[in-house]
Amino acid sequence: MTEKKKTTIILFSGDYDKAMAAYIIANGAAAYDHEVTIFHTFWGLNALRKDEPISLKKGFLEKMFAKMMPRGSDKMGLSNMNFAGMGPKMIKHVMKKHNAMSLPNLIELAQEQEIKLIACTMTMDLLGLQQEELLDGIEYAGVAAYLAEAEDGNVNLFI
Amino acid sequence: MTEKKKTTIILFSGDYDKAMAAYIIANGAAAYDHEVTIFHTFWGLNALRKDEPISLKKGFLEKMFAKMMPRGSDKMGLSNMNFAGMGPKMIKHVMKKHNAMSLPNLIELAQEQEIKLIACTMTMDLLGLQQEELLDGIEYAGVAAYLAEAEDGNVNLFI
Amino acid sequence: MTEKKKTTIILFSGDYDKAMAAYIIANGAAAYDHEVTIFHTFWGLNALRKDEPISLKKGFLEKMFAKMMPRGSDKMGLSNMNFAGMGPKMIKHVMKKHNAMSLPNLIELAQEQEIKLIACTMTMDLLGLQQEELLDGIEYAGVAAYLAEAEDGNVNLFI
Repeated sequence: MTEKKKTTIILFSGDYDKAMAAYIIANGAAAYDHEVTIFHTFWGLNALRKDEPISLKKGFLEKMFAKMMPRGSDKMGLSNMNFAGMGPKMIKHVMKKHNAMSLPNLIELAQEQEIKLIACTMTMDLLGLQQEELLDGIEYAGVAAYLAEAEDGNVNLFI
Repeated sequence: MTEKKKTTIILFSGDYDKAMAAYIIANGAAAYDHEVTIFHTFWGLNALRKDEPISLKKGFLEKMFAKMMPRGSDKMGLSNMNFAGMGPKMIKHVMKKHNAMSLPNLIELAQEQEIKLIACTMTMDLLGLQQEELLDGIEYAGVAAYLAEAEDGNVNLFI
Repeated sequence: MTEKKKTTIILFSGDYDKAMAAYIIANGAAAYDHEVTIFHTFWGLNALRKDEPISLKKGFLEKMFAKMMPRGSDKMGLSNMNFAGMGPKMIKHVMKKHNAMSLPNLIELAQEQEIKLIACTMTMDLLGLQQEELLDGIEYAGVAAYLAEAEDGNVNLFI
């Protein structure tokens, strides 16, 4: 009996292109029969936000963070050539033309492939994000849970 | 018989300093007798562009990307303190003073050391880059090829 | 007799939030009984700078770099939503409210947990940084030392 290979990704970045890279690698690895975990921390949490506004009681700073950060993967900017939002439009246009999957689609596929999507509870606290604001079907954990997966990982990446 | 250790790097970034770090680690690992692969995706593809303009038939968006992205490793900007292009000049000046290798030299050395340089075909498609525009002697593949290398890698990095 | 698991991190970034992520993972791994190394290169060296000005003989460019780069971990900016320095203040305010550790505290804890903090001598040279400017109790080495650790690492990250 051989054990499954394992891929873990820390998604720290809130950039559309970097999140796309993370989810393309993750979906590839799952198709390759790896056990895959994506641990979303800091700005990477934005990829897991629902796109409708959720009304919650929050402090002033938490409200500001919630307003300033993109609500959901489709609203994230590019790491490069963002050009005040024109870049993501160009990329999305080209992606449609090439029948490439959009980031929201890649996240859906990841959930279908049973990739474990974890939201880092410590940075959720810091940024004032609550479970109601994030996608259904994800897990909540801290750095210890990440390390428990990663120490047996074959491919561990920080994106 | 012992197998060779393996290092794989995904070069996602189009920043001069990050690409330098990637190629310094890669060349170090090759000197250390690792089997080394650099998988260039998204903006990291720019490190592999030839520096002369190549005339090709392209669509409008593809032409725009080609114009906006730096043509070759020597024209890339810094991730930090770029100061509208002054940063790279300072760094290059200091590097010359210290006899450090420039990025184009590091890439040459990598090819001499038989480091496998792969261009990600999926993002080439997206950004409209064609094989004629990229350096000679590189390979073309997708994420599956990366994973096949990385799952046995000792050191796997995303830069 | 089982060997200790090993975590290595290359801290390339000079962003407060990325350095925080690096040190949180490193401290977590050390608490988890891993042997941990953080290799500071390029802008990541700024996390190791003492916060008082150190008077040293330097060339013009080296002086400029020294002036332009943040002196110590507490003065670093954010990778995202920096807003001309307002972002780090917000984050630090929220961190205090949540009793989260600041970056300087995380670095102190790392030293108490005997995490090996290495400064990359090649980039120290490039940026004109001298040992007198960096924290006490750290080590000085090059990419070969990093690779020697990383090739047996269970978790290797580039941040």
